[in-house]
Amino acid sequence: MRIDVLSIFPDMFKPMTESIIGKAVNRGLVDFSVTDFRNFTNNKHNNVDDTPFGGGAGMLLTPQPIFDAMDAIKAKAGDYGRVILLDPAGVPFTQAVAEDLSGEEHITFIAGHYEGYDERIRELVTDEISLGDYVLTGGELGAMVIIDATVRLIPEVLGNRESAIGDSFSTGLLEYPQYTRPADFRGRQVPEVLTSGNHAKIAEWRMKESLRRTYLRRPDLLEKIELTKEQVKLLAEVEAEETTD
Amino acid sequence: MRIDVLSIFPDMFKPMTESIIGKAVNRGLVDFSVTDFRNFTNNKHNNVDDTPFGGGAGMLLTPQPIFDAMDAIKAKAGDYGRVILLDPAGVPFTQAVAEDLSGEEHITFIAGHYEGYDERIRELVTDEISLGDYVLTGGELGAMVIIDATVRLIPEVLGNRESAIGDSFSTGLLEYPQYTRPADFRGRQVPEVLTSGNHAKIAEWRMKESLRRTYLRRPDLLEKIELTKEQVKLLAEVEAEETTD
Repeated sequence: MRIDVLSIFPDMFKPMTESIIGKAVNRGLVDFSVTDFRNFTNNKHNNVDDTPFGGGAGMLLTPQPIFDAMDAIKAKAGDYGRVILLDPAGVPFTQAVAEDLSGEEHITFIAGHYEGYDERIRELVTDEISLGDYVLTGGELGAMVIIDATVRLIPEVLGNRESAIGDSFSTGLLEYPQYTRPADFRGRQVPEVLTSGNHAKIAEWRMKESLRRTYLRRPDLLEKIELTKEQVKLLAEVEAEETTD
Repeated sequence: MRIDVLSIFPDMFKPMTESIIGKAVNRGLVDFSVTDFRNFTNNKHNNVDDTPFGGGAGMLLTPQPIFDAMDAIKAKAGDYGRVILLDPAGVPFTQAVAEDLSGEEHITFIAGHYEGYDERIRELVTDEISLGDYVLTGGELGAMVIIDATVRLIPEVLGNRESAIGDSFSTGLLEYPQYTRPADFRGRQVPEVLTSGNHAKIAEWRMKESLRRTYLRRPDLLEKIELTKEQVKLLAEVEAEETTD
């Protein structure tokens, strides 16, 4: 996968190379490049923004440097693939979007900072994505989050060690509580069942606690999946326990 | 505001000092510190993780280094304030959460990486937060996003220039389209009304296009706010236009 990012803060992306991206780049699985579109301005002050037509506070990114930076990416890579604009007005980012993106050969992100975008920039864009219903000072963190969630889904990027944990959204339920050594830490004990060696009991306890956490915190997720017969029974137990408490 | 972060990848937070955090730190508005909890392990290999009781793939963060790192923060700062665990099972992060956090004097983030958490770590935690329904390789990006969204809300952090744009979620509607120079860019024109100088017409056009974008992309937001009489009328026009197209 080739990933391009347009940003006037290219240094913000340096730490990505510490993490999953760095490993994926070193193994030849991802080709990652940040383009500072300030280098493409054709005005003498290297301004990338200007005041809005029609008045109003704030500044807007002008189309010229971004169109020209995109042209340069196209000249180098043949095209710019999926083009993602980070914008609060975009489609909310979800695991399904990450899965969709992970199958692409080329993704280009346009990350603004502080500013709004001149509307004509959206013509370059195939996907407008929002991280969630909150406002950030720039698109850089949004691009990093989407890249992280997407690249880890590329086959071979994650080893077994990392991939097994944390995929709450692949089962549709939240994770069950987990414990590691020591069995007694400052007086707090591990639940007995987990040290019993009874694998059927452990599996049942985990399923039930996974259902409990989902029931208590994210009941909306329970409506989105089809429960097995065993899960229906365990969920009924959870509901009874949580109501009497 | 004092912000502490516990992470075994402290370098990932360096670029934050490029951005809003750096400015806020330089102006004495925010005191930002990252603690590498690997430095607090009491085993000779400096391991921060171990296999789960009860079996299963993946590794879990052990409680000891995190509890000890938290003790060190408490010793230095008097307490650890609000303690946020980045976790897919947490409450979804929203602008309301950012507003709530922006009033705190001290926030501490616990950011795991790849791993799950030993359940006992949650005892230290006041808030479990999830960025959204997607899986990341670590909590670092989540902490950065929450810090960015929160710190920009602290009075005096953002100047006027930056604050006016992008606050889609403060009005409850998505932003209207915006345009800046040049009026003609590669044949794409700015809408005439914006260069008309008629301020009432411009204000009406903007309100209508804001309603249109919200109607087309995020109709759920329209149900959450009370519309004025004028907005109801404009929305009816939008609905008629979008149905006949």
